[in-house]
Amino acid sequence: MAYTLSEIVARLGGELRGDDCLVERLAPLEDAKTGEISFLASAKFRRQLETTAASALIMSPKLAEETGYGGPLILTDDPYLYFARVATLFHPAPPARPGIHASAVVGEGCRIDASSEIGANVSIGRDVTIGQRCRILPGVVIGDGVVIGDEVTLHPNVTVYHGCLIGSRVGIHSGTVIGADGFGLAWARDHWFKIPQTGRVVIEDDVEIGANTTVDRGAMADTIIRRGAKIDNLVQIAHNVQIGEHTAIAGCVGIAGSTKIGAYCTVGGAAMFVGHIEVTDRTHIGGGTLVSKSIKKPDNYASSYPLSTMKEWLPNAVHLRHLDDLVKRVKELEREIKNLKDSKEPNND
Amino acid sequence: MAYTLSEIVARLGGELRGDDCLVERLAPLEDAKTGEISFLASAKFRRQLETTAASALIMSPKLAEETGYGGPLILTDDPYLYFARVATLFHPAPPARPGIHASAVVGEGCRIDASSEIGANVSIGRDVTIGQRCRILPGVVIGDGVVIGDEVTLHPNVTVYHGCLIGSRVGIHSGTVIGADGFGLAWARDHWFKIPQTGRVVIEDDVEIGANTTVDRGAMADTIIRRGAKIDNLVQIAHNVQIGEHTAIAGCVGIAGSTKIGAYCTVGGAAMFVGHIEVTDRTHIGGGTLVSKSIKKPDNYASSYPLSTMKEWLPNAVHLRHLDDLVKRVKELEREIKNLKDSKEPNND
Amino acid sequence: MAYTLSEIVARLGGELRGDDCLVERLAPLEDAKTGEISFLASAKFRRQLETTAASALIMSPKLAEETGYGGPLILTDDPYLYFARVATLFHPAPPARPGIHASAVVGEGCRIDASSEIGANVSIGRDVTIGQRCRILPGVVIGDGVVIGDEVTLHPNVTVYHGCLIGSRVGIHSGTVIGADGFGLAWARDHWFKIPQTGRVVIEDDVEIGANTTVDRGAMADTIIRRGAKIDNLVQIAHNVQIGEHTAIAGCVGIAGSTKIGAYCTVGGAAMFVGHIEVTDRTHIGGGTLVSKSIKKPDNYASSYPLSTMKEWLPNAVHLRHLDDLVKRVKELEREIKNLKDSKEPNND
Repeated sequence: MAYTLSEIVARLGGELRGDDCLVERLAPLEDAKTGEISFLASAKFRRQLETTAASALIMSPKLAEETGYGGPLILTDDPYLYFARVATLFHPAPPARPGIHASAVVGEGCRIDASSEIGANVSIGRDVTIGQRCRILPGVVIGDGVVIGDEVTLHPNVTVYHGCLIGSRVGIHSGTVIGADGFGLAWARDHWFKIPQTGRVVIEDDVEIGANTTVDRGAMADTIIRRGAKIDNLVQIAHNVQIGEHTAIAGCVGIAGSTKIGAYCTVGGAAMFVGHIEVTDRTHIGGGTLVSKSIKKPDNYASSYPLSTMKEWLPNAVHLRHLDDLVKRVKELEREIKNLKDSKEPNND
Repeated sequence: MAYTLSEIVARLGGELRGDDCLVERLAPLEDAKTGEISFLASAKFRRQLETTAASALIMSPKLAEETGYGGPLILTDDPYLYFARVATLFHPAPPARPGIHASAVVGEGCRIDASSEIGANVSIGRDVTIGQRCRILPGVVIGDGVVIGDEVTLHPNVTVYHGCLIGSRVGIHSGTVIGADGFGLAWARDHWFKIPQTGRVVIEDDVEIGANTTVDRGAMADTIIRRGAKIDNLVQIAHNVQIGEHTAIAGCVGIAGSTKIGAYCTVGGAAMFVGHIEVTDRTHIGGGTLVSKSIKKPDNYASSYPLSTMKEWLPNAVHLRHLDDLVKRVKELEREIKNLKDSKEPNND
Repeated sequence: MAYTLSEIVARLGGELRGDDCLVERLAPLEDAKTGEISFLASAKFRRQLETTAASALIMSPKLAEETGYGGPLILTDDPYLYFARVATLFHPAPPARPGIHASAVVGEGCRIDASSEIGANVSIGRDVTIGQRCRILPGVVIGDGVVIGDEVTLHPNVTVYHGCLIGSRVGIHSGTVIGADGFGLAWARDHWFKIPQTGRVVIEDDVEIGANTTVDRGAMADTIIRRGAKIDNLVQIAHNVQIGEHTAIAGCVGIAGSTKIGAYCTVGGAAMFVGHIEVTDRTHIGGGTLVSKSIKKPDNYASSYPLSTMKEWLPNAVHLRHLDDLVKRVKELEREIKNLKDSKEPNND
């Protein structure tokens, strides 16, 4: 697959400057060779312009002017996004290979569109609905009554429990489990009594979920991942959680039961949310943060202990456990200073 | 499925107050409609009594009196537990569908009770024993010599390695891996030498384990999950760990090798335990806590940095790295104040 | 399987002291019975020598002299490593059972060495290469074009995406996902635009990876796990990360995109690395540490809040959020003390 710059501009917009040429691949600026197209998104990396062998670059008009770069260019206001779109041109999502593999097992009452692909060793329960052009890849297990929209990809070894709802253009990566029981327990004098988890997981359109993530079904109501949300690997989403539209959640995050995260939020890796709280729209949570209460004001939040050498860390950590004493000692000092000053002042009388 | 309140009381105990009626479903108090039963466990939510359309409620005698609620009631001392039991009445665990699916592969020498279900694309090794009424769901892989009790459910795509022991009434959710090798390494001058992991995982009766959790086999002795323990999703349990009876462990927790956690403990999400420590019975660990040493006294423990805006966090975190200096400065101030006071006192001589 | 001490010494080196004898199993010192061999690696456990029933022990010449132990011994400078090697003698890795199981599905154009084992319900894509004596266990899914070296074990339900490269003598435990898409997103005015992830995962020789770990494919360049690295369970390795040779990473660790970790490092459980940083060779990161910036000096690093009872924690955590104020108050006290001292000094003039 190869495109001329003018073909790319015809499809994706932007402005061609300099000679048209053929590009065959994408590459990062520092590695790019002849026949490859790359991008410059920040003046910080402008030095790489001197050495790159890229045949063409994507740049903003402003950077193009500042750097005075003379080679073939596509000008656009957002070079990073444009590059992503070019990447999609060169690497379109693989199409479904229609049909049900001989080794797949499909239960009674299923409605699977003929344009969809059901891979090797897939197991599908009863009364499952699968829309058009879906790719259900090897080893996937889908429970009874699941409903899946169009153009959904379930990567190998994904599990979707009974009754869950998946919208259109959803991608779920390998090993991810949708709809396992939430962690619902009632203490019964001398043991835990398991509370039946009777809600579903509802995943709206255009959601993408990474690998080995878990999204538990609701206890009674549903767990909901709203339109356009993006969730990375090894994320735990407990029962009755709601994730807002277009919120992005990085890897290793945990969200405890019934917590609601708003729309357009970003959550850094390994952040943890306690249960039954609400986080407002457009909130940004730093990596490793423990979100221990509701957040009503959109802002950037953090809560991590700063990186230290073990030698620095040891004495500081010890004092941290006595911070309350330290504050009392400072209070006492303030009182004593005041006394000393007061006792001096009578001299002025 | 529908029950009258008197049928429910006949099965589960409690006291019926007001008119008997038929209920068909359970619902949270705020959403409940006609035909649904709900519960009130705390006076905090009593306002919802004014608007709920629930046909019947479960409440303690005390709350029933305080709120003066006039509708049909089941009185019980623990409404939350009672509600959980009603939920089990309406949503009994699905029974096994006896038989071995044509696509399942079963090795030589297995003893599988005829009442158990072996699902599609299941792989079972040699000399495996499976008791009565078990559900081994699609995509499960069971290694050689595994022994499984009665009424066990292994959800889709669970893996159990060779030689592990699983008791009765155990539930293990999708993607969970039981008995992979522990992380046992000996440094051999210029590389790591892998130590064979020859112990097993032993899971006692009535244990439930969530999705995508990992329980490693012991190095020589066994890794043990004791009776009635409940473990959530994405939990890592390393080799030779022991989890006590009826201990509940929330999602994203990690427990390093040879650590022993006592009975009746609760562990909040994302807590981490270093290896080779012991945590006594009835200890409660807050979410995100790093348990860095043995705990001998049952209490509530925590160790997380408090949530802050990034703007608040930055200067505090910087000072935290210099807490030892700050303590020295306070000590110096105390010394100086004492000097100042002492130098004043001679006046009194 | 049983060996005399002299047979063991003949194979593994070391020096036999005392009577030769037959040993049939390995055991920890405190549990060892007749017919078992154990080891003493530290004087700390020397008391166990008085009660152990082990038929033979592995010990350093120094400890043997100090303890004056009189039973059959193998002397070696590193008893722990020697014991590990004896364990490998008693528990050799199970050999491949050559052949492709009837239920396995293998795509066109694959080259699978006849000495390798392809288990039940395995799915292999097109143009896959698998070397000699590999064990591809039940439920594994391998994508198109994957290349795998010799003596590789993929445990049940592992997924390897298309185009990834796996060296020789690599072990990957169940549920682990190699080569899922990295979390690459470009913001497109009102939604996230997915960036095609076109790199691979390259896993070099002698790497071992635990269960339910995720290693994402690179965005354009590759994600690389170098020779001899050892990675535990539930670890997240994001796109374009590089892990150096012989680096060991414990469970629940997360490493964000493009971060490079050097050779011979050790990383404690649940440590988290932000993206786009470099950690130099021979660095040691404590459990639960958030590595928020590049590390240029090899040392031991930590960053965790110390364990506290909830009662201790509460006031300290509150003050921690006002540490900046506290530092200002101390500064003010220092100023006032100085003033008081200065105001006294004129007396001396």
